[in-house]
Amino acid sequence: MPATAARTLVELLAAKRDGARLEGREIAHLVDAFMVGELADYQMAAWLMAVYFRGLDEAETVALTDAMLASGRVLDLASVPGKKVDKHSTGGVGDKVSIALAPLVAACGVYVPMVSGRGLGHTGGTLDKLEAIAGFRTRLPAGDFERIVREVGCCMIGQTDEIAPADRRIYALRDVTATVECIPLIVASILSKKLAEGIDALVLDVKVGGGAFMKDAQGARALAAALVRVGERAGKVVAAVLTDMEAPLGVAVGNAIETREALDVLAGGGPADVVECTLCLGAEMLVAAGAMRDESEGRSRLAGAIASGDAARVAERMIEAQGGDPRVVEDRSRLEVAPEEVPVLAPRDGFVLRADALAIGLAAVAMGAGRTRADQAVDHAVGILVDRKPGQRVSRGEPLARLRVRRAAAASALVERVLAAFVIGDEAPRTRPLVLDRIVASSTSASTCG
Amino acid sequence: MPATAARTLVELLAAKRDGARLEGREIAHLVDAFMVGELADYQMAAWLMAVYFRGLDEAETVALTDAMLASGRVLDLASVPGKKVDKHSTGGVGDKVSIALAPLVAACGVYVPMVSGRGLGHTGGTLDKLEAIAGFRTRLPAGDFERIVREVGCCMIGQTDEIAPADRRIYALRDVTATVECIPLIVASILSKKLAEGIDALVLDVKVGGGAFMKDAQGARALAAALVRVGERAGKVVAAVLTDMEAPLGVAVGNAIETREALDVLAGGGPADVVECTLCLGAEMLVAAGAMRDESEGRSRLAGAIASGDAARVAERMIEAQGGDPRVVEDRSRLEVAPEEVPVLAPRDGFVLRADALAIGLAAVAMGAGRTRADQAVDHAVGILVDRKPGQRVSRGEPLARLRVRRAAAASALVERVLAAFVIGDEAPRTRPLVLDRIVASSTSASTCG
Repeated sequence: MPATAARTLVELLAAKRDGARLEGREIAHLVDAFMVGELADYQMAAWLMAVYFRGLDEAETVALTDAMLASGRVLDLASVPGKKVDKHSTGGVGDKVSIALAPLVAACGVYVPMVSGRGLGHTGGTLDKLEAIAGFRTRLPAGDFERIVREVGCCMIGQTDEIAPADRRIYALRDVTATVECIPLIVASILSKKLAEGIDALVLDVKVGGGAFMKDAQGARALAAALVRVGERAGKVVAAVLTDMEAPLGVAVGNAIETREALDVLAGGGPADVVECTLCLGAEMLVAAGAMRDESEGRSRLAGAIASGDAARVAERMIEAQGGDPRVVEDRSRLEVAPEEVPVLAPRDGFVLRADALAIGLAAVAMGAGRTRADQAVDHAVGILVDRKPGQRVSRGEPLARLRVRRAAAASALVERVLAAFVIGDEAPRTRPLVLDRIVASSTSASTCG
Repeated sequence: MPATAARTLVELLAAKRDGARLEGREIAHLVDAFMVGELADYQMAAWLMAVYFRGLDEAETVALTDAMLASGRVLDLASVPGKKVDKHSTGGVGDKVSIALAPLVAACGVYVPMVSGRGLGHTGGTLDKLEAIAGFRTRLPAGDFERIVREVGCCMIGQTDEIAPADRRIYALRDVTATVECIPLIVASILSKKLAEGIDALVLDVKVGGGAFMKDAQGARALAAALVRVGERAGKVVAAVLTDMEAPLGVAVGNAIETREALDVLAGGGPADVVECTLCLGAEMLVAAGAMRDESEGRSRLAGAIASGDAARVAERMIEAQGGDPRVVEDRSRLEVAPEEVPVLAPRDGFVLRADALAIGLAAVAMGAGRTRADQAVDHAVGILVDRKPGQRVSRGEPLARLRVRRAAAASALVERVLAAFVIGDEAPRTRPLVLDRIVASSTSASTCG
C-alpha cells in the first residue's frame, strides 16, 4: 500500500513504541499534525504513553521543545537592549520568590521578562499571588509587556494563548492520561514556554520533597540536568538549583500573605529561607546573564539593591505599570488579608520534626486559597501562616500555625487538618539545607522518565 | 483531595502504567466508563499503550473480555437444543475455509452459529466471499439467526452493532494508535465477540507466516495459548491449531472464486491444502463439542458427510435460509467471476520457492477484491488464481497465476505485481506442513505482548 500521511503518523507512534529514535522533523510533523487535527488526541495520548516508557533522547527533546515553541508566537523583545533572564520554579508550597526576585534582578541591571502560572492542586501560582494586589493585571498585550520590560526592567504576566499552544494542549492530555511524570516531556513543556519569552538565560528552581513534583533528589537532579542540557542545546545559558520542599517555603501559604512576605524581602526583611532562596536564584540569574562573575558577587549586588531601596522602587514601577497600586510595596497592610486569625496550637512540647508541605498546601486549597481545577477562582485573602518549621522548638499551647480565614467559626476542620501536617518529637531533627545542589552542566542522559 | 470518579480512572491508568495488576471490577469500570463517555478516547488510548508495555495477566484478560462482552448483547441460542461450536481464524490470504466448514460440521450434528468479518488490507473476509452468492444476506435479525441455526444447523452472519460494541470502539482506537500487536488485547477482542455468540466451544485457526498477523510460530503459539486459557477460564472448551500462511491457502484469492473453491470442497474436490485445513478444523470442532472422541473419528465423520452429500445439502439450506441462491452449491458457475483471464507466466524453469501471501493479498486489494478502509466496497468477481505453490515445479512460460479481471488491457501492472510475489529457484525447497501445531492447554503466561 502507498504510504499516506495518516499511515506515516501511526508508523511514528509504532516507532517510538518500539524504542526507535525519531528524527527532529518527524517529531515536528507529529506536533504540527496534532495542531491541525491530523493526529487525533487519542493518537497523541498513545504517543505520550509510548514516550513515557521509551523516553526521548536529548535531540528528540530539543525537537519537541522547538516544535511546541514554534506552534505559537515568540515574544519579540528586540527593543530591550540588554540581556534578558527568567527564573522558573517546578512548583511548591509557599514559593513566592518570583515576586521579589524579578524587581530585584531588574534593579541590578538585568532584564526579567517573566511569564508565570497559576496555582493548581497543592502548588501555588505567582499570578494568583500578584493578583492579590488591587488592580494588578497579569494579562497584557505583547506590546505592553515588551514596553514595561524595557522601561521598568521587568514585567510579570501569564501565559497567553499565543505562547506554545501545542504545549498547552499536550499538557492537558498528559494531565488526564497519566503521562505527566516523564522527564523529557516535562523538559519540553517548561522550555517551550520559557524560550517563547525571548530570553537569553534561564535559571531553574527544581523543588525536591513531599510538597514538590519531584519527591526525591535523584529524580530532581535528573530533571535539572535534562533541563540544563536541552536548554543549552537550544542556545540559552541555563542553570538549575535544587531546593528543599519538604516544608513550605517561608511562613505564608496563600496569596495576599505570600505577596506580603515577598515584599518584606524587598524591604530587607522576610523569613530567612525566603531571603536565601531569593538571593541564591537572583545571583544565578545575574551570573547566567553575564552581569556578574560569580554567585558571591551576585549576592553582594542583590543585597545592595535591597538595602538601597532600588529593588523596591523597581517593584513599585512594575506594579504601577501593570495597573496595580504601587503603595503596597511600602505599605503592605494595603493587601487585603482575611480578618479572622485562628491558631493551630501545639498539643505538646518538643521539636517540630515535620511540617508537611503537601498537607499544608492541600489545606490551603480547602480554604479557598488554591484550586483543584484550572477554571476555579481563588480567594486571595485567606491562607496559612506556618509559625514553626522543622527543627524549631515549640511548647504546648503555642501556635504551630495560624489560619487567616473569613469566618473563624467554620475553621475547626481546617485546624485539625493543618495540625495533622505537623509531627512533633522529643529530639531536634537533622535539617537539610534549603539549597541542595546546583547544576550548570551535566553528562547524564535526558532519556529517562522519572 | 477527595477521590472523585475522574481521579480514580486516571489512577487506574497510572496503576497499569506502573505495572500493577488491576482488579476485574477496575477493568470493568474502565470499559463501562469508556462506553458512557466518562473515560475519553485519549485516556483509553493511553491505557491501551500502557497495556502494550505492561501486559495483562490471565485474570485481567478474562475481565477485559467479560467487560467488552457485557457492553453488548449475547445472542440467545437457548432454543437450539445441542452443543454449539464456532471457528475463528486470525486471518490470512485465500482463507475460505469457513464457507465449507460451517455446513460440514452442522451436517455432523453439531450446531455452528458463526459470526464472521469482512476483509481489510491483505486479509480477506468470509462475509465478502459469501456475498458473492446472489442474494445472500449476512445481516439478519437475531431471531432469524437463532431460527436458522436451530432449523438448518448453521448460520453465517456479520457482527451486529449489538455485539461487543466496546470491542469495536476499542479496536478502532488500537488500529490508529499502534496498539494492535498486543496478545492480551487481541485475545480479549477475539473472545469477547465469539463468546457473544452463545457458543459452548471454540476452535481457533491461528495463522502463521508472512501473510498472517503473526509472522512467526513463537508469537502465534503464545497467542494460541492465551486464547485457549482465557477462553477456558470463561467457561468454554477451546482448542487452537497453528496453520501456515506463508503462501495463500488454496488456489483462489478473491471473493466469488474463493466461495467456488470452498463449495468444491463440499463436492468432494478442492485444493488439497483447503481440504486438509477444513477437515482438521472440522475434526477439532466435533471433538471440542463432545460429538467425537478424537480427531481421527472426526475426520472420518466429516469425510462421510462430504461423500454422502449431507454437507452440500446443509449448505443449500443455509444459503436459501439467508436469501441466497442455493443452486450455486451444485452449479458453481452461477457465481459471477470476472470474464477476462490474464496469466502471470513463469520467467524461467525451476521450483517455486515462495508465493508471498502478503504480496498476493495486497495485489488482490489493488484489483478491487479487498479494501484498505472499512467503508470501501469490494468487487466480488475479480481475483487471483494461484496455480503454483511453493515446492511445485514450473516451466518457463507456464502460468504461475491467473488474474480474473473485468478488463485485461488494464492488468499489466497487476501482472508485474503478482509476478514479483513469486520466487523461483533451482532446487526444490523444504516445505512445511499446513498444520504446524495444535494447542488445547498451556502453562505459558498470557501477559506478554507479541
